[in-house]
Amino acid sequence: MTQAAGAGRPSIGAGRLAHRLSRARHLALEAGRDALLVGVGADLRYLSGYAPPPLERLTMLVVPAHGRPSLVVPRLEAMAARAIPVVEAETVAVVPWDETDDPFALVAGLVERGAPDGARPPSAVAVSDRLWATFVLHLQEALPTARFSLLSDVLRGERIVKDPDEVDLLRAAAHAADRALEQVAHGRLIGRTEADVSREVRDRLVAEGHDEASFAIVASGPNSASPHHEPADRVIRAGEPIVLDIGGSLGGYGSDITRTLWVTGGEPSRGPDPDFLALYGVLRDAQAAATREVRPGVPAEHIDAVAREIITAAGYGGAFIHRTGHGIGLEEHEDPYLVAGNATPLRAGMAFSIEPGIYLDGRYGARIEDIVVCGEDGPIVLDAVTRDLLVVHG
Amino acid sequence: MTQAAGAGRPSIGAGRLAHRLSRARHLALEAGRDALLVGVGADLRYLSGYAPPPLERLTMLVVPAHGRPSLVVPRLEAMAARAIPVVEAETVAVVPWDETDDPFALVAGLVERGAPDGARPPSAVAVSDRLWATFVLHLQEALPTARFSLLSDVLRGERIVKDPDEVDLLRAAAHAADRALEQVAHGRLIGRTEADVSREVRDRLVAEGHDEASFAIVASGPNSASPHHEPADRVIRAGEPIVLDIGGSLGGYGSDITRTLWVTGGEPSRGPDPDFLALYGVLRDAQAAATREVRPGVPAEHIDAVAREIITAAGYGGAFIHRTGHGIGLEEHEDPYLVAGNATPLRAGMAFSIEPGIYLDGRYGARIEDIVVCGEDGPIVLDAVTRDLLVVHG
Repeated sequence: MTQAAGAGRPSIGAGRLAHRLSRARHLALEAGRDALLVGVGADLRYLSGYAPPPLERLTMLVVPAHGRPSLVVPRLEAMAARAIPVVEAETVAVVPWDETDDPFALVAGLVERGAPDGARPPSAVAVSDRLWATFVLHLQEALPTARFSLLSDVLRGERIVKDPDEVDLLRAAAHAADRALEQVAHGRLIGRTEADVSREVRDRLVAEGHDEASFAIVASGPNSASPHHEPADRVIRAGEPIVLDIGGSLGGYGSDITRTLWVTGGEPSRGPDPDFLALYGVLRDAQAAATREVRPGVPAEHIDAVAREIITAAGYGGAFIHRTGHGIGLEEHEDPYLVAGNATPLRAGMAFSIEPGIYLDGRYGARIEDIVVCGEDGPIVLDAVTRDLLVVHG
Repeated sequence: MTQAAGAGRPSIGAGRLAHRLSRARHLALEAGRDALLVGVGADLRYLSGYAPPPLERLTMLVVPAHGRPSLVVPRLEAMAARAIPVVEAETVAVVPWDETDDPFALVAGLVERGAPDGARPPSAVAVSDRLWATFVLHLQEALPTARFSLLSDVLRGERIVKDPDEVDLLRAAAHAADRALEQVAHGRLIGRTEADVSREVRDRLVAEGHDEASFAIVASGPNSASPHHEPADRVIRAGEPIVLDIGGSLGGYGSDITRTLWVTGGEPSRGPDPDFLALYGVLRDAQAAATREVRPGVPAEHIDAVAREIITAAGYGGAFIHRTGHGIGLEEHEDPYLVAGNATPLRAGMAFSIEPGIYLDGRYGARIEDIVVCGEDGPIVLDAVTRDLLVVHG
């Protein structure tokens, strides 16, 4: 509780942010968007370093195709906004609004003034993908001539490739999650509820250096067949599997690791049954084979296909009910998605999960997940916990 | 860490949820909406009890003006969705979609089939206020004939009044936050960073019974003049104020309390200066006077005006840079807002913060905040920590 946050951590400097902003403006112009309208969230943090909590008062970075970006903020957050490096460097201007002002009219005015030809009404804007409907609909009203599209259409190619500092942050987050997972997997489990173990996971994620815990799935026994199981009052018993899928964020960047345990209570007769061992062996092979395929130029969907082929050939095709992975960075889930239909070629610096799973409804399931960076010559696996089945006393 | 969650807590049963759903359908019809489209978040929880994490795969409750509501979920969450009481009671049907399906076309189909006159194309839908832009824009494309408006326009009058179980949850949350605040205020503070104290606050919020900590503002010295200060590396010293503004959620319902301390280090010479005492006295009066005005029929903006008048008369009007309060329930901030221009009359069961503040830029500031329920005969104040200035050793 008294450990200092951020000590020795890589961070993203004002120069890098200014470069990202100038690149975003260039891409906006190229894509024919009069402005990029960026609400609180990962895109705002990526472009400006500013990461306030998401609240009902509009905070919006307006990046016009021409001219200086503005950060529209509620008056009571102006002091915080003025302290961020890209504002101190005057790359971005702070525009505060008062409680009784109309912030949407304010944004519309900035878009109109920053459009390539200030004389004509704005024809196209891009909004950040997770901007709330309440803001989207009000902005559509305030900018009636503009076609609205998603910021990811403009910025996807930028955020999808991580620079070395970003990879360092992803690695630090992965290692912190690895430690938390090892501690929980080798601690007491039997007789505790999933919810209780889940709370322990969250505490350990933070104790190991995360800024916050984002999720802590603890799915025991039949619940292990539900990939997004919400931990609840079920008590863990000897003789069953547990899927632990945990993650948080560190310096803004996500961790996300899944391992499957089998809890014996120290009784050999309560070890994994042959069906489970067979299932797990197939899953282990599929996860390893998919990981080996990672290199620049390979289509994202190919990684999914490799895992799926092995699982399907073993007869579990219908039990692998989700894609193989998702990108990770400032968001838990982001581009690139490793899913059928996504032909995006992998590029060096892309970071994503590889996490096939097999789920036998009503019985049990298993999943193995690592975070992997696409390196110039092949996969760089950030998580280091063994991918063998963890058969523990519990 | 081993405390059981939810023991003895009031909860919202399936019968109540079914009633809310039927009421929502009735209001949709009355308001001329073909369907309500409810994404993950407070509205989904309010109407169905379902509270999955917000992710990039569409989860959406479709409440058509006619016919049974459907819960559209990604296949990998179908098992979790089928376990919720309103689905078990067959009030709501689960409609799973696979990774390569188009969930927006699926929703559009459900809207079309559930419209008052299945023959004509949908003309109006309401989307939940915090639905992400990526979902809003895709739904606008999938439902090109429909006018989009906000769900709060339809449902505001429902969620804004809390039933007795909801008030019990708000009270339990408030008391848990009170305990966490008292513990931190009377513990060691001097020599620690704001970020470190903030982490302690979060731990204590959870230890006292919250499901999760939502925020933990620790604003010391000059930072106390920034209402939404982000706790960072500043070290707390003797002879300065600290604003603690903390909250979490318990059974889905929020807590939110602010108290201002003055840290002396045990040295009388480092007590609050006369200016601060004067400022605090005005603030204390304003907060108490505003609270006393709470009763059914009083316009929301009147509560703001009462606090503002007292602060302005004392010469601090320009230093009270935010509204007096916000509603609270399944969201940290929701209707009713106590702000100039909001003439909504208070009703019994409304719950909101009353939190005036005075901020002297570059010097220091103070804020006092309670959660208050409008009772039949006057205010019911849920927080019980003294509102006097907390002059502590630190």
